[in-house]
This record gives sequence, C-alpha cells and structure tokens, in this order.
Amino acid sequence: MTPAHSTVELVFDGPAMPIPADRTPLVAIFRDGDGREYRVPGFWDGGGRYVVRFAPEREGEWAWRTDSAEPLLDGHEGSLTVSAATGAGPVRVAHGYHFAHADGTPFRPVGATAYNWLHQDEPLFSETIDSIAAAGFNKLRFMVFPQAGGYIEHFPALLPFENTDGMWDVARPVIPFFRRLDAAVTTLAERGIQADVLIFNAYDRGYFGFDRLTEEQDAAYLRYLVARLSAYPNVWWSLCNEFDQLERPAERWDRVGALLADIDPHQHLRSIHNWEDLYDNNQSWVTHASVQNGSATTDFGRANLYRDVWQKPVVLDEIKYEGDIPDRWGHLTGRELVHQFWIATVSGCYASHGESFVTPSGSLHMVEGGPLRGEAPRRLGFLRGILDDLVVAGLDPIDKWDDPAYVAGVARGQYLQYLGSSAPAEWSFRLPQGTLGARLEVGDVFDVDVIDTWNMTVQSGAGRFVLDDVQRNDAYARAAAPLELPAGEAVALRITRVVD
Amino acid sequence: MTPAHSTVELVFDGPAMPIPADRTPLVAIFRDGDGREYRVPGFWDGGGRYVVRFAPEREGEWAWRTDSAEPLLDGHEGSLTVSAATGAGPVRVAHGYHFAHADGTPFRPVGATAYNWLHQDEPLFSETIDSIAAAGFNKLRFMVFPQAGGYIEHFPALLPFENTDGMWDVARPVIPFFRRLDAAVTTLAERGIQADVLIFNAYDRGYFGFDRLTEEQDAAYLRYLVARLSAYPNVWWSLCNEFDQLERPAERWDRVGALLADIDPHQHLRSIHNWEDLYDNNQSWVTHASVQNGSATTDFGRANLYRDVWQKPVVLDEIKYEGDIPDRWGHLTGRELVHQFWIATVSGCYASHGESFVTPSGSLHMVEGGPLRGEAPRRLGFLRGILDDLVVAGLDPIDKWDDPAYVAGVARGQYLQYLGSSAPAEWSFRLPQGTLGARLEVGDVFDVDVIDTWNMTVQSGAGRFVLDDVQRNDAYARAAAPLELPAGEAVALRITRVVD
Repeated sequence: MTPAHSTVELVFDGPAMPIPADRTPLVAIFRDGDGREYRVPGFWDGGGRYVVRFAPEREGEWAWRTDSAEPLLDGHEGSLTVSAATGAGPVRVAHGYHFAHADGTPFRPVGATAYNWLHQDEPLFSETIDSIAAAGFNKLRFMVFPQAGGYIEHFPALLPFENTDGMWDVARPVIPFFRRLDAAVTTLAERGIQADVLIFNAYDRGYFGFDRLTEEQDAAYLRYLVARLSAYPNVWWSLCNEFDQLERPAERWDRVGALLADIDPHQHLRSIHNWEDLYDNNQSWVTHASVQNGSATTDFGRANLYRDVWQKPVVLDEIKYEGDIPDRWGHLTGRELVHQFWIATVSGCYASHGESFVTPSGSLHMVEGGPLRGEAPRRLGFLRGILDDLVVAGLDPIDKWDDPAYVAGVARGQYLQYLGSSAPAEWSFRLPQGTLGARLEVGDVFDVDVIDTWNMTVQSGAGRFVLDDVQRNDAYARAAAPLELPAGEAVALRITRVVD
Repeated sequence: MTPAHSTVELVFDGPAMPIPADRTPLVAIFRDGDGREYRVPGFWDGGGRYVVRFAPEREGEWAWRTDSAEPLLDGHEGSLTVSAATGAGPVRVAHGYHFAHADGTPFRPVGATAYNWLHQDEPLFSETIDSIAAAGFNKLRFMVFPQAGGYIEHFPALLPFENTDGMWDVARPVIPFFRRLDAAVTTLAERGIQADVLIFNAYDRGYFGFDRLTEEQDAAYLRYLVARLSAYPNVWWSLCNEFDQLERPAERWDRVGALLADIDPHQHLRSIHNWEDLYDNNQSWVTHASVQNGSATTDFGRANLYRDVWQKPVVLDEIKYEGDIPDRWGHLTGRELVHQFWIATVSGCYASHGESFVTPSGSLHMVEGGPLRGEAPRRLGFLRGILDDLVVAGLDPIDKWDDPAYVAGVARGQYLQYLGSSAPAEWSFRLPQGTLGARLEVGDVFDVDVIDTWNMTVQSGAGRFVLDDVQRNDAYARAAAPLELPAGEAVALRITRVVD
C-alpha cells in the first residue's frame, strides 16, 4: 500500500540505445476511482532504465497505463491501492496570500538559502542540512546548476549533462548528477524542509556555459527535471534567482514559466526571483511572488504594497544577509535581519534568510552552506514557532492602508502587532477594525501575550481586555490599565480573542 | 491651414432617420504624404448631421476619404494642408516613468479633482476652472456620467442618453449633453489643463442607472465618446474611478480597456483607478498606473515600489483630501497633503489634489468644484513650477532600494532631495551613485538651491560644491562647509551639475 502524497516509482526496461532525454520517452496515465486522470511524464534513468514517478493525491484504487512511441515502453498497465496520507502533502497557496499543505495544515515559510549547496562535498553537504534544520528553517533555496563568480571556492566534478565537443548535450543527462539531486530533495523532506529548487542560474557568468543553452535546450532540461522531481511532495519551483541578470527578453521567461505550469503533473508552487527588475507576477503561471528588495522590510507600510498589486502570496526571498562582507547586501546585523523578518510578518508576507560571513574556505554560507554563525537563525526559528502557533490561517493587514500600528491577523480572531524599533514602556489596548471580515463588538474579550522577538520570550496571558469603546475604525478597552512591556525594542503582541 | 495637433472637423449630411449611435456611422481614412493611414471613426451629431474629428500629428499634405455602409456618407474625399503645430500636442508616456507632449516638452502632472463638475450650472462650472487654473493645476479629473450618493447636492437635468420606457438608449445620445462635454474639454484646453475623463462611474449607486448598462451598451457608449473627444489633444482616458466599487469581473474591465486601446485613433493616455483592489496595470492597454492609496505617500520608500512592479508612470490620483469632514479620507491638513505631494515627487511618481471642505451647498470641492479654500493648492502650484523648471525629463529614484535620503533625478545631471518632516539646521553635500546612468566623478561641480516647500521660497545658488570623495555608492564634497538650511521642516534641495 502506498500512502497518498508519497512517491510511487514505476520502472521499465527500454531500448538499449536510449531515447534522447530531451524527448519524453513515455507517459503514464494514472486514473483514480472517480475517473480523474493525471498524465505523468517518465524519464530516462541511464542504460535501458526508464522511470515514472507519481504522488497520488487521494487514497483509493488507482489504475495506470503507459503510452509511448517506443514499443518496449508502451501499453504497460497496472494498479495500485493508495492508503491514507501519512504526511501533510505538498504545499499550495491557501487563503489568497498564504500557504498550506494539501491536508490543510498551514505552512509558514521561514526559509534559508545556500545557492551552491548541491555541489558541495561531504561533510559540508550534510552539515548544511543539520544547521538549517537545527535553526528551525523549513525551506531551502538552492540551485541545480553550479554557481560561478565571487565567493565560489568549489567547482564540482559532477555536472548535469554530458559534454560533446565542448557543447552541453541536454539529451544526455548525467545520471549520477540527477540521482544526487533526487537524494538532496528527499533528504530535505526527511528533515521537514521544503526544497525551493532554482532551475536556471544567473550566476554562471559563462564559466560552465549553462546560461548559454538555447530556449529549446532549456525546455528539454525542464521537462527532464520535472519528470524526475515532481513526485516529491516538498518541491517548490523557482525559475531563477535574479533572473534579470541574464540578458533575455521577458517573454522567454514567460514562455518557460507557462511551460512549467503546463507540464508539472503535481502542480507545485512556481515563482521567479528578481535582481533589479521585478517580474510581472500577475502572470497566471506564477503562484506566488518571490521578491528581492531589502528595503521593502526595513520599515512598515512597504512590503504589503506587493500583496495588493499581485494578489498572491509574497515571499521576500532576499532581504540582504547577516554577515561581515563589504557589499551592502551582505553586512546586516542579526538584529537588523530579525527586525526585517518581523516587519515582513506583520506586512502579511514571508521572508527568507541568508548568511554572508566569510567562511574558512573563503566562501559564504549563502553560497556553500555549512554551520550557521549569526545571531539571526535561532531568532528566526523562534519566529517560526510563533507562526506555527497561530490559530489563524495567515496574517493579513487588518486595515491595510490606514492602520498606523500595522496590525495583522484575522479580524475578530487573532492579531499580531510588532512595535519595531520603538520601545514604549506600556501599551494601551487598541485594535483596528479594518474593512474586511468580522467587526469588533463591545464586550469582545482578548488575551494578549507579550513577545520579546530578540530575547525569544513569550509572556503568555500578560493581559486580558474587554472592548468597551468600538468606533468606526478602531476598538479600545478604555477601562483597562495599559500593559507594561519589557524594556527594549523589537517587542510584539499576540492578541487572541477569547471565545467561551 | 490647420496646425498639427489641432482639431479638424468634417461635417456630412446623412440620413434623416439617423444611424443608431451604437454603430459607427462612418469612418474617415486620413493619409499623410508618406502613406501612413489613420482610421478615424465619425459620430452622429443630431438630426442629419454626421461629424468626423481628427487631429493630424504632422504637418504636410493629407488626403481623406470616407467609408460607410450608408451611401450618403460613403465615398466623400478631400485633402487638407497641415501647418506646423502651434501647441505642444497631446501628452504621451516618455522616458519610461514620465510624460511629455508630442513635441517633447515634458509634462509634469499636478492634477485637481472635481468628479461631478461637468454636471454643475453656472457660475459654479466656470468658477471651478478659474480656481484650478489660478492655483496652477494642469490636469482635472471629472466624470462623464453624473455622480450620486453622499455630498451630491445637484442632480442634472441634462443626461447622456435618451430614456425609452425607463431604459437608457445608448443608440440615442443626447446631443446637447455631449456638446456640453465637448465644450468642457476644449475650455480646459484653452486654460492649459488636461482633461482626465472618467468614462464609467462607480458612484451611480443605482440612482441614474448608468452603472447597469450591459457590456455591449458600455462599448457603444465608449465608441461614441472616443469618436467625439479623441481629436482634442488634451484628453486623457480613465476607465473609472474606484472601478472595484462596481461588482464586475476584472475581465470586463480588461476587455473594455483593450477596446479603448483598439479604437482610439489618437492613442491618448489610458488608465483605471482603484478603490481597495489594485488593477493589473501590467496589462498592455494601460499606459500609466492611476492609483488610490494615501499611505503610499505618507512616508518615503513606498510609492516607488509601484514603479518597479508596473514599469510605467505612476500617478497617485487619490492620496486623500485636504478638508474637514469626519471621513478619514477627507480631513488631511494642507501641510499633510503638500508633504505627500513632495514624497510622491521624489518617489518618481506624480499625484493629484482634491479638497473636501464642506461647501455652502453641502457638497465638497472634489465633487462639485467651485472656489478652493485650502492651504495646499497654491503650494502645489509652487511645486508644479519647481517641476516645470527642471532641466531633466523626469525624476527617478537614483539608488532605488538603497538610498536612505531618497534622492531622485537623473544621474550626474540634476537631483531633487526632500527632507520631509525632519528639520536639520544644515546639510552636508552627498549624492547617491545609483546603479543606472552616468557615474559621479571627483571634480564634478554642483549648485544647490534650497527650496522651502511650505513658504514657497527658492534660495538659488545657496551653495556650490565640488566632489572630492567618490565612493562605490555615494559621493561627497568633504572639503566644503555644510549648507545652512531655513528653520522648519519640508525643505527640499535642488542639486544641479554645473557644466562649463
């Protein structure tokens, strides 16, 4: 029995002269008991071995059959019985601006970054997973193609395609390379980490030449990658990091993004990440915006603007890095980076971490991985815990363009307020009404917990408040004494309605 | 002789039984000496009168002929000699984020708003034009359809269509209504004011019923409106104010916007203005974003984010109003509104004004017009003068996500810095390098003018500075003494490179 959302692998013997991997060698059509069909591309896995991987969404009886122009691969049939899921399933967009697993469990991304991690030797490869898992990160951004350029101290021997006469032959993938990639993704899954797979690479800079593949070669590689990885539930697709570093017309990205949406049988999350020019994330192939812009989270009232224009989840996948290099993108203090994550949070967005202290090898953690040295990671693990403890599906700005306190949450449910770099001695109860959702009423009762985001403390039940003054735009508990706050800045308030 | 960019009117006698105005009764094909053709729709103007209006772009010899299914209107021919333009011509998008007239003269919109102006009687109608012209505004937003709802104290007798059995007959426009509209647009032109024509109306609220026309009726009206007004050079099209107050699928707006782009022979500027949900301004029919969001201009680092996502000019056509009503959109102080305009300016955007003091009739200026009473208008006229005096085509954020001073301009040309609500006693010379355009060099010389945005003074040549320390991200004149600033907040600096 196969649990739902786990990976079923069908293996077939095909021709000894392999079908070029730039053509889909076979498709397996999976059909559930209600007649719903999934067309799942297979892939060549070396020698005469051909594989189809599928992760059925639902329990029950499934039938499958293969379709191929190659007689050896055509017309195979079988069935499988799928039992109840043992995991939460792949992550999807939920509630407009947020994420949840297939079973409805909210997923709150607090991601890490190690672009060139896949291409590192042991023990660095495993140390990276250990360090990000220990810190509490639940997503990792890494690239399939190797990175070249600054801070790259390791050039891998294992590369994705065979090289013929100095040209990459995308029809002949290097199977050990892709098995290593398979293992990387499944190892992350075992540690509870989503694999944010960066498909193309703007940092080749002509060194390896994977940035000079034609659009047709890109498509062949994409089809192969999707056929290999799509059945792993923890896959997210990111077309490219800093896509606009590559001199390509936007339409080429539009087409490859649309192709990805078209061919992925499991419909994983899809994004593209910018350098200086934002992508048109209104396009239908984009499931969520993946944005670089550090300044959007240095103060209130900015990142939330991205939500409005795209009406999709916004993940600020690059808000600069904690580190000590001269580049201004790489020398945030831990305090600054943690502050930015909390701003992102109450903006109704998500953010990703990166660390840029120079490592002993001369590289950076956000390039090669390894142990984390900064002050931010465990505070971000703490933030993740706060997010996972929320009783609401996601935090949305309550009064999006008019709340001077930038309170986020679900109206008349639960709220999070972040006081940022102000350090008031006390806080008087006030909530915005907002324009969406339930309206606050006199008599509503709220418990307030006080969170010290830097010292990682939660004072639960610090105060209970009863609304006694509900106005058009705000609600107050005038009769209550103000809440005393801990000294220092970066304090947050979790405000939860008490329902009998 | 007809000067280029002026309105040529061809008049024809057509059938006594008029061709319904929801069909284009005739088209005139205008052809210039190089063989370029313009297909210009004509319109019914009452009785047996049919009119074609055209504004030729270029001087020279033009020929025209008519094409119509109606024999009386078909096959007319003629020619005209077009002389050099006497005006600057219609406004178009220029330099990516800015505007310029057809002759290249920059146009810097500093707009006013009187939604229901068209429907007012004299002397209010003319007083409105006088007051906004005197204040220095160069654009006016007003609606073709009458407004209903709050603060509406006047319901017009003259309405756009004949009413048959309680239904609006868009095939039978009321000619005196549209002649009044013609006159309104041309009168604004005579005063140097762009007519930002709001085509559909979200404020009908079922009172008149123009918000319940079908999509086909909307299209018929749009074709008629474009045929009448397009040859007036000062026309801008705005599909709707607060479009999302109307419960319509976004696709209906997409289609009517695309139709407008398709049928307008003069290709005027096109936008749509939001209430709570931003429109997808990435769509190709949109020439510039017309945004409502007051909070985008209350602090630095926000409005510029809209530029990045749309890569088009951004006009903040509603940033709340100077006034005294209880609604929070209508009780800004003059200082707050002027501050917001300057924030918009150094964000590389433009803004529009509105005034919401209750008028003697019980209405508001932003509804019915009339004399302006606020403190903002003449300061905005002063701002317009500063913009018109710029020697660069437009102000772009120089170092868009990384400049703590939010300096805008053209690199190594001219810059504007706004100190906002800070009130420093002095200012030490510093410019950002930015990532685009020319790089600053040691020895570059700049003159700095000090602008008091509230007291409307310009201290020209307040200081001359020579760069002596040029770094990767910033440039300084270390040897120079700081510039003393006038007391108080809201000071701006105009920094212009001196070239021998």
